[in-house]
Amino acid sequence: MEGFMKKFINSYDNMISEMLNGFVKANTDVVERPYERVLVRKGSPTKGKVGLVTGGGSGHKPALIGYLGKGMMDAVAVGNIFAAPGVQICMDAIRMADGGSGVLVCIGNYSGDLMNFGMAIDMLADEGIKAEMIIVNDDVASSPVTAMENRRGVAGEIILWKVLGYMADSGADLSTMKRVGDQVVFNTRSLGVAHTPCIMPSSGKPSFEIGDDEMEIGVGHHGEPGIERVKMMSANDITNIIMEKILVDLPYNKGDEVSVIINGLGSTSLLELYIIFGRVEEILSEKGIKIYKSWVGEYFTSMEMGGFSITLTKLDETMKKGVDHPIAAIHFSN
Amino acid sequence: MEGFMKKFINSYDNMISEMLNGFVKANTDVVERPYERVLVRKGSPTKGKVGLVTGGGSGHKPALIGYLGKGMMDAVAVGNIFAAPGVQICMDAIRMADGGSGVLVCIGNYSGDLMNFGMAIDMLADEGIKAEMIIVNDDVASSPVTAMENRRGVAGEIILWKVLGYMADSGADLSTMKRVGDQVVFNTRSLGVAHTPCIMPSSGKPSFEIGDDEMEIGVGHHGEPGIERVKMMSANDITNIIMEKILVDLPYNKGDEVSVIINGLGSTSLLELYIIFGRVEEILSEKGIKIYKSWVGEYFTSMEMGGFSITLTKLDETMKKGVDHPIAAIHFSN
Repeated sequence: MEGFMKKFINSYDNMISEMLNGFVKANTDVVERPYERVLVRKGSPTKGKVGLVTGGGSGHKPALIGYLGKGMMDAVAVGNIFAAPGVQICMDAIRMADGGSGVLVCIGNYSGDLMNFGMAIDMLADEGIKAEMIIVNDDVASSPVTAMENRRGVAGEIILWKVLGYMADSGADLSTMKRVGDQVVFNTRSLGVAHTPCIMPSSGKPSFEIGDDEMEIGVGHHGEPGIERVKMMSANDITNIIMEKILVDLPYNKGDEVSVIINGLGSTSLLELYIIFGRVEEILSEKGIKIYKSWVGEYFTSMEMGGFSITLTKLDETMKKGVDHPIAAIHFSN
Repeated sequence: MEGFMKKFINSYDNMISEMLNGFVKANTDVVERPYERVLVRKGSPTKGKVGLVTGGGSGHKPALIGYLGKGMMDAVAVGNIFAAPGVQICMDAIRMADGGSGVLVCIGNYSGDLMNFGMAIDMLADEGIKAEMIIVNDDVASSPVTAMENRRGVAGEIILWKVLGYMADSGADLSTMKRVGDQVVFNTRSLGVAHTPCIMPSSGKPSFEIGDDEMEIGVGHHGEPGIERVKMMSANDITNIIMEKILVDLPYNKGDEVSVIINGLGSTSLLELYIIFGRVEEILSEKGIKIYKSWVGEYFTSMEMGGFSITLTKLDETMKKGVDHPIAAIHFSN
């Protein structure tokens, strides 16, 4: 045990393994665990369908493994808390998703994930498996728009998975999906704020330090520094600030149709998230931007971090079909 | 603003109204808000179908309003944070759910809710609306088994709603549903533990006081005292203690088929809940009790409270059909 840490775990060394064990037992109808750190949608690979793979560090539940299932992900490579999965795990995940039509690896822009999945893709090419990567970099806080390649990936991954799940089910080929997927990423911008860190189970220490009356705009999923530390303010005021930064970034314009994700980071209540959504809807309505679809809830967390993020995606006709496509993932359905 | 409180609200007085406003805007395809504090499934009432109503204090999201939708609740009476809705609100909710075949009001065992819904039912009888009440008292911590009528209702409400949603959709009549519903309640036992209170938005004060290394077994959804305060211990050890108390209470025996709900109270991560589920599955397997269905997630919270509850329901054939029945509630689907 980790002293006085207020977490329900048995030991740090075994927590991911025990979590995966419970997860598979609770969802035996949907997932299988062919390898220690690889979860696969039951029935994957589907012959002729492009396989969809993601992966990354743990601690973001329901991401990543909660998105396994019909219409979403085929395989997930599972890392330790906030740590990239190893190359072998990435290779096994890609192999388990390949139905002969190639695999798209859709991951957030973190160096460890990019390196290990990149090596896995290179090595699998020798086995005749064709895999490509889509790198999600939706977090406008993490770098200026002039250097988007340095931006981190956050909850925007979800809309990418949703659209690509539709395309894969519809029989699209790898190169078409890669092109549309890159466009989804480009059309997607997110920004978050956090007032309470999560506690790292390895050390019992908070993921970042912050005052009793402060919150940080743009703080990353793993406690990476944000762009501005401010005093706590009203829900409307902070939502105004975040929306202002998101809207100019693409920019989103009058007449656009968008999807909206209001994502709780862990301990922020759904009650608060709906207050925030109410303000987002007002702002978009004033600007003549139409909400085609919204999701309000916990979709990509940092364990018990307190805060939220807003994600906007400008939708074209293909993406709207992707949003509407029926899915049955473990923690995401419509 | 409430000083330094770390919540995203605009003012305490408006928070429920603003939350409902955001909720309805985000779910216009499923819900309507005919009265300030009454939410209704779009299309309710359905002629000939027994209406299903719940209600109670706010702060438990996704309960109560997240369970509105196809196969679940028809109307919800919304109170303030942890406070019963007024009699008029209860009356309006029941009226909006009545399709001529009567209404079942399914609520937790709290005096304010019982009194106000009780008065509403009495007064509506004069209008010719037939409504009955099912009182959920699944929390084994809140009173000995010899005085079950004093027990509080917690996450066990969800399985009741699920089974009754099936029966209502199947055309069952009010008296049959009342009988089966009471049996579901009797077959359902829950117990929770919490290590971190939520912060009351009215005062900025915690819902209960607790030490840095402590958790309390059986603490109520509103911070009501539990049965024992213990030091933090491993996930397996606390799960063993909780399961021991639940299993003897009905009791649950070898050969029984059960549903299991592992419910996060707010800030406890899904990662931890799956570790707990893994241990619950082991215990039930050792005892020869079969898990027919499990749910792991946040189903009935206390804002940002840290902790979890376990709910077991012994299922008969009708209840199993209820569990399997397809639903599409806003925050609960299969």
